Amino acid sequence: MLRHSLLLLFDELKKQVRKGLLTGQIGDVFSQIYAESLQLLSSADREELISRVFGKRYIAFCGVARGSRAINADLFEPDVTLWTQLLSEMQTGEIVSFNSDQINRVLYSLAISFCASVDLIKEGDQQTPGTFFQYFVAFIVAWRLGVEPTTSIQILSIDQEDTRLPTDFIFNPGPKQRKFHVPIKTSSRERSIMLWAHQKLIDGVYGVERFMGTPVMLAETKLDKASREVIEICLPEQWRMYQLYIARLKRIYYLDIPAAYARLNAEFPPLEVRPFGDFLFEWKDLTPG
Amino acid sequence: MLRHSLLLLFDELKKQVRKGLLTGQIGDVFSQIYAESLQLLSSADREELISRVFGKRYIAFCGVARGSRAINADLFEPDVTLWTQLLSEMQTGEIVSFNSDQINRVLYSLAISFCASVDLIKEGDQQTPGTFFQYFVAFIVAWRLGVEPTTSIQILSIDQEDTRLPTDFIFNPGPKQRKFHVPIKTSSRERSIMLWAHQKLIDGVYGVERFMGTPVMLAETKLDKASREVIEICLPEQWRMYQLYIARLKRIYYLDIPAAYARLNAEFPPLEVRPFGDFLFEWKDLTPG
Repeated sequence: MLRHSLLLLFDELKKQVRKGLLTGQIGDVFSQIYAESLQLLSSADREELISRVFGKRYIAFCGVARGSRAINADLFEPDVTLWTQLLSEMQTGEIVSFNSDQINRVLYSLAISFCASVDLIKEGDQQTPGTFFQYFVAFIVAWRLGVEPTTSIQILSIDQEDTRLPTDFIFNPGPKQRKFHVPIKTSSRERSIMLWAHQKLIDGVYGVERFMGTPVMLAETKLDKASREVIEICLPEQWRMYQLYIARLKRIYYLDIPAAYARLNAEFPPLEVRPFGDFLFEWKDLTPG
Repeated sequence: MLRHSLLLLFDELKKQVRKGLLTGQIGDVFSQIYAESLQLLSSADREELISRVFGKRYIAFCGVARGSRAINADLFEPDVTLWTQLLSEMQTGEIVSFNSDQINRVLYSLAISFCASVDLIKEGDQQTPGTFFQYFVAFIVAWRLGVEPTTSIQILSIDQEDTRLPTDFIFNPGPKQRKFHVPIKTSSRERSIMLWAHQKLIDGVYGVERFMGTPVMLAETKLDKASREVIEICLPEQWRMYQLYIARLKRIYYLDIPAAYARLNAEFPPLEVRPFGDFLFEWKDLTPG
């Protein structure tokens, strides 16, 4: 079977990522991927889903063979020019004409367009959307912090073994600069405790919050394929326990914040779950503790 | 499609488990499942696999539609009477005619027979073998400790919310008795950090090693379907980091111990990875720290 043109673009993206997120034409590859995804979705039927999440509306795209994941209709603004404008401002060094909410919409629309397209192309492929989302968010964070991420940390070699420990994305802009530990996932689901466990490990090796933990997630929606109902799978009480007993995450960012997690911001002690767009403006204000 | 007779027995097992592991006829259901599994495997072709693990030999069973996972040929003694004898000794209160190694073989042979059978019946079903293995090991541990497990712990309700936190199996034989936290998995793979994270959480709520962590796993083999080669996926250096920086697990038990993890016992500080059979004899000697 011929590899779908969208997946060929994804191959090209992987090739570019290997050269580095801050060099080359990665932004343009994202533009091409976005355009190709929207073209693919435009040939599919748009379906209104039944939302079981208060205040949120969802749609999906239905292809010939299968349907897409749920898309938050209020965040979805399929428009490549918004992305290219954002990208062009990033390239001049500063985002001036988008606020946090607008950035969130642009990034959500691009990311979910690709994920939904892959849903239509391949049955049950979670890995391609997952990897794409990692590259996409890492690209934005790398731009903001001005440094390439690594995915391992060095462990003090007390016993000669020169050990590197694989991690999620680590951004270290240099001595005495803010350092970030940024797991990037399309959803956390039943594995969310791993976010805190990795933070605990990095805290242990480098000191508590030497790397501030700021995971970025896409959404926590679940679409019941038979009933066409959308729910959000959230475990706020468990998250609070992880935050109290395992490690402290400084922020948890989402492109589509689940309602149950958004409420954690309002409780004491707060567990700050924010739109990812906020990171681009508040990153310099974040401090450990 | 009619549900396979082995899966009907599995349904019966689930029904019995709901009544409790220490009551009813669960042991007999395991005997039936074992016999049915061996009958199913006897109708499949037996294949010698290419072992890339030093000192271990593996086989697989090949059905009409698909093949089974790898089976450690040196541990595999398909003989229901060995199990029924072990079961009968358990019912009289003490195991007298099996040592740890022999128990391990009996338990391994029963567990892997069911898992391999499910591999032949259903494509890509990891959940049925996983749940079965949890019930099977929990049944043995519940017998040994004389107490039913729970799968949640109560959190001190400082803010009125009466929170229970879902956990892996927890065995609490009563006040001032040894308590155990026993995650049970067919393999740990890339999620192994969750074993330590849950221990850290329970340590936080109840005090360090108030519940001793003794996870039980089946194996870490991976069969390459094309090349027919078997490897063991192990991350011993990462495990050591988890043990140093996240929490202390008292033991990690396997029915088929991966070679790379067995070596951790010989190093300092030891991370004690043992055959599960050992638990039945050493459980009263285990102490925190």
